[in-house]
Amino acid sequence: MRLSNYTDYSFRVLIYLAARQENGDLATIREISEVYSISKNHLVKVVHQLSKRGYLETSTGKNGGIRLGMPAARINLGTIVKEMETSFNLVDCHVGSKGCIIGKNCQLEGIIQKSLQAFLGEMSQYTLEDITSNKRELAGIFAGYLK
Amino acid sequence: MRLSNYTDYSFRVLIYLAARQENGDLATIREISEVYSISKNHLVKVVHQLSKRGYLETSTGKNGGIRLGMPAARINLGTIVKEMETSFNLVDCHVGSKGCIIGKNCQLEGIIQKSLQAFLGEMSQYTLEDITSNKRELAGIFAGYLK
Repeated sequence: MRLSNYTDYSFRVLIYLAARQENGDLATIREISEVYSISKNHLVKVVHQLSKRGYLETSTGKNGGIRLGMPAARINLGTIVKEMETSFNLVDCHVGSKGCIIGKNCQLEGIIQKSLQAFLGEMSQYTLEDITSNKRELAGIFAGYLK
Repeated sequence: MRLSNYTDYSFRVLIYLAARQENGDLATIREISEVYSISKNHLVKVVHQLSKRGYLETSTGKNGGIRLGMPAARINLGTIVKEMETSFNLVDCHVGSKGCIIGKNCQLEGIIQKSLQAFLGEMSQYTLEDITSNKRELAGIFAGYLK
């Protein structure tokens, strides 16, 4: 069972920014890419999507960079999953040349959807603020790596 | 967000057997493979695992085949997911050469695990019997395809 890398990287970017922001620092994609050993190309797409939705603010120029676009307490983890996952087809009903033969007679799909809602409901209890209550330790880890 | 094909195919095999069993028929991997357009090789592995856990009974010989190894009402959907999924690492904390730098300071992982438990808890409310209450329609669809 997996979330997409897209969602995973979104969380990492948000955690990074919430932790670093303490010092008023703007971050760069290059530095996030180095810290997590994640390809810059992937991060460019993730940052673009998060910016489009207002979670990030980006500025260009010599001292440009990225920071959170709203308070961490307003960034809901369930919403991030809903917005960043590209598919919630937990099973692929369309595998094979014509898709699954059971089609509309399938009674499993509804149960999977209810279970997915339970998952998202639980995620939605928390915000970025909740998972970065240890901001200082996190900022220390990141700063140590970038030294 | 995805379950593995392994779990998906397990559900399909179980649904097929629950529906066909009504007539006392034994099924074959070839016929399940044809009905769902799924590779026989994948199904061999799935059937082997389900048999090992007692969900299926297989018999060899001329009139051999596969059938459920226990009543559908005893086959819990949450348990099938737990037993058939190969990984519950919803995000890959080990991506990159050294894994995610946050390591034990990550507060996201616990929330993802709680959300996963909510998902599995919901799935565990249901059995194979619940999703095959339309056995006759399903048997009709399968029989129509195999004619």
